[in-house]
Amino acid sequence: MPRSVAVHRQAVMELLAGVAITKGNQSVPLLQALGKPLAADIYAPLSLPPFANSQMDGFAVRSQDIPSSGAELRVTAPVPAGAAPAPLKPGFAAPIMTGAMIPEGADAVVPIEKANPSSFPEPAATDVLVELPPVAPGTYVRNSGSDIEKGSMALAAGTLLGPAQLGLLAALGLATVDIPQPLRVLLVTTGDEVVEPGEELTAGKIFDSNGTLLEASMRQAGLDVVRSGISDDHPASLLAVLQQHTRQGGPAVDLIVTTGGVSKGAYEVVRQALAGHPVDFLPVAMQPGGPQGLGTFNGVPFLGFPGNPVSCLVSFEMFLRPALSEVVGAPAPRPVQKARLAEALTSPGGKHQVRRGTLAGNGTIHMEGGAGSHLVHALARANALVHIPAGVTELTAGAEVEVWML
Amino acid sequence: MPRSVAVHRQAVMELLAGVAITKGNQSVPLLQALGKPLAADIYAPLSLPPFANSQMDGFAVRSQDIPSSGAELRVTAPVPAGAAPAPLKPGFAAPIMTGAMIPEGADAVVPIEKANPSSFPEPAATDVLVELPPVAPGTYVRNSGSDIEKGSMALAAGTLLGPAQLGLLAALGLATVDIPQPLRVLLVTTGDEVVEPGEELTAGKIFDSNGTLLEASMRQAGLDVVRSGISDDHPASLLAVLQQHTRQGGPAVDLIVTTGGVSKGAYEVVRQALAGHPVDFLPVAMQPGGPQGLGTFNGVPFLGFPGNPVSCLVSFEMFLRPALSEVVGAPAPRPVQKARLAEALTSPGGKHQVRRGTLAGNGTIHMEGGAGSHLVHALARANALVHIPAGVTELTAGAEVEVWML
Repeated sequence: MPRSVAVHRQAVMELLAGVAITKGNQSVPLLQALGKPLAADIYAPLSLPPFANSQMDGFAVRSQDIPSSGAELRVTAPVPAGAAPAPLKPGFAAPIMTGAMIPEGADAVVPIEKANPSSFPEPAATDVLVELPPVAPGTYVRNSGSDIEKGSMALAAGTLLGPAQLGLLAALGLATVDIPQPLRVLLVTTGDEVVEPGEELTAGKIFDSNGTLLEASMRQAGLDVVRSGISDDHPASLLAVLQQHTRQGGPAVDLIVTTGGVSKGAYEVVRQALAGHPVDFLPVAMQPGGPQGLGTFNGVPFLGFPGNPVSCLVSFEMFLRPALSEVVGAPAPRPVQKARLAEALTSPGGKHQVRRGTLAGNGTIHMEGGAGSHLVHALARANALVHIPAGVTELTAGAEVEVWML
Repeated sequence: MPRSVAVHRQAVMELLAGVAITKGNQSVPLLQALGKPLAADIYAPLSLPPFANSQMDGFAVRSQDIPSSGAELRVTAPVPAGAAPAPLKPGFAAPIMTGAMIPEGADAVVPIEKANPSSFPEPAATDVLVELPPVAPGTYVRNSGSDIEKGSMALAAGTLLGPAQLGLLAALGLATVDIPQPLRVLLVTTGDEVVEPGEELTAGKIFDSNGTLLEASMRQAGLDVVRSGISDDHPASLLAVLQQHTRQGGPAVDLIVTTGGVSKGAYEVVRQALAGHPVDFLPVAMQPGGPQGLGTFNGVPFLGFPGNPVSCLVSFEMFLRPALSEVVGAPAPRPVQKARLAEALTSPGGKHQVRRGTLAGNGTIHMEGGAGSHLVHALARANALVHIPAGVTELTAGAEVEVWML
């Protein structure tokens, strides 16, 4: 009885959970944290704005100095942004710039356009008067703490750090931030038939696309990727690679992902190499990507993906990526949408089928290529994964399906 | 009369268009191209699959050897993936693995589960027979070129290179790919009141969040960012920085972006420094981010953003990012969605207002903070920009608005 997609995803999460806990955090300069999750809650070390400041270019006044008919006030020294102004005396108006500190005593700003004359006097001018209309207390004043109060929570642990979140940390005066240590994954593609791109292709061989496809996916998901090169179909070769990266005291990895060799054929190198290790090779009720390996090798969590490129991508998107989102807090889960099928589909009833498609602006999804897991050109045209749940065998054109935007 | 958002965006595009053309392309290893646009069309140097191969573990046969009643065929040498098999003689069946080359003469594969016995003989066994059911020609054969034919277009210029696209290039045997040279932008934050995060904050000063916010946004958009540090409110200081990065024969940049000093106050350092240079300082009918500078400095395209963090982010998202998507081909435009307002809103009728909000799963958008452009904590909670077009002054709760997902 194949395992459901949900059960296998849960198993992958549990496999990763232990590693993520033991990895710990690291402090990095703000921009190095771009796209990473915040490791711990951050409380504001100061209020924002740090002090009451003007929202406009204008005149800072004591509002009670101006009756409803308006008033002529004496112009005092201007307050540029960045200065610490003297207190404002009664009967005076201080020219003030946007962002500049409101002088002690002042409680409102009259914008320059409403003043008469409606331009600032020359800084050297003395004994200048300005006619101002009445203004309610607090007008055009950004109060200290109106964005965030000192001591309150600025960002919660797990928040993904994008430009706005890093901008907030900078505004709070922080130059560094704590993020989780990235997980280090060993990625091993296997197969006698597989050749590195750029090398010579002889009869019966294909170029390795899994390595590039998965390394790119893993990097986008925030993993540190260690590549071993292609391992051939001799179990001893694969075992040597795995031993080398999991040795006590050696350059350890936190996770191993292999591609290929997990099926039921006669030459399944990953199955053969891991015989005797606590790794299950099992069918998951999913198409493509049904055969999966899961367990540990020398104590390091191990995932064995199937060998076709589309199966690899689907395995990553269905199992490893959601587990990272859940356990590490990054990457952000794929956006989920509803879409209508442009064409009728059939699906094996006992499996969750994952097709590739292109979502058009009108909410219609077109399939890219058939169900075949070798169709990497079709995959490269798709912008979404299309889910046909287990139990569904036929869908008509126009049927609603769930899609995950890639 | 303020300029419309659309007219200013078009002006930014035209400013960038010339630079993008003269930058040229660079060849990089596949993984360095992750997230970048493809510089030129790529035609397949080989077919995919490169040769007809088996979709299943099973027996490769000549379909005409098996009548409708089935047949007993003699088992020949197995065909592992990666091997170049001998032609299949009439009356024989070749054990074949998924992905292995179909032998000359064979035209179909019978899956191992349908064979009797339903397991492969030991490789050393001789004179073994297998009973097989009839099979239609082409069954479980992936034909050469069924994914893509040699010589046809694999990817069009401008395609954004994600894991699937890079995986396709690897499958085609390519180890490198041409992408446009990234644009190099000089980012200068200005203001006497602004202090680097991590330094001491004295009265009247604020920490610079614009630099971090914009550098993060620019990096995500694929720009190479050069930071000058904070420039004070002396025009001569700013001019020195700009001269240094635009000198003939020096370390040139392709674009200059400044923050602050573009308004109509008494101390507008960017306006003052660029007097005499072909730079327009103009109002755009947008809130926040209304005052904008646009032109060239020593021949280098120049954009002057306003000084508040929210204004900076909105300026970047409304003008520079869309211009890069259009002119360079990356980043991908922000996903656009319709959403319903959780609360009533007012907007200045003459301006396109850009509010910040959080889109909930049910399609409702909640505002984060008010219209104020200093609210960086509220910005950090938002996941979307909310558009209230010019001409609209009031919207009721439940009204439909366009949102851009950040």
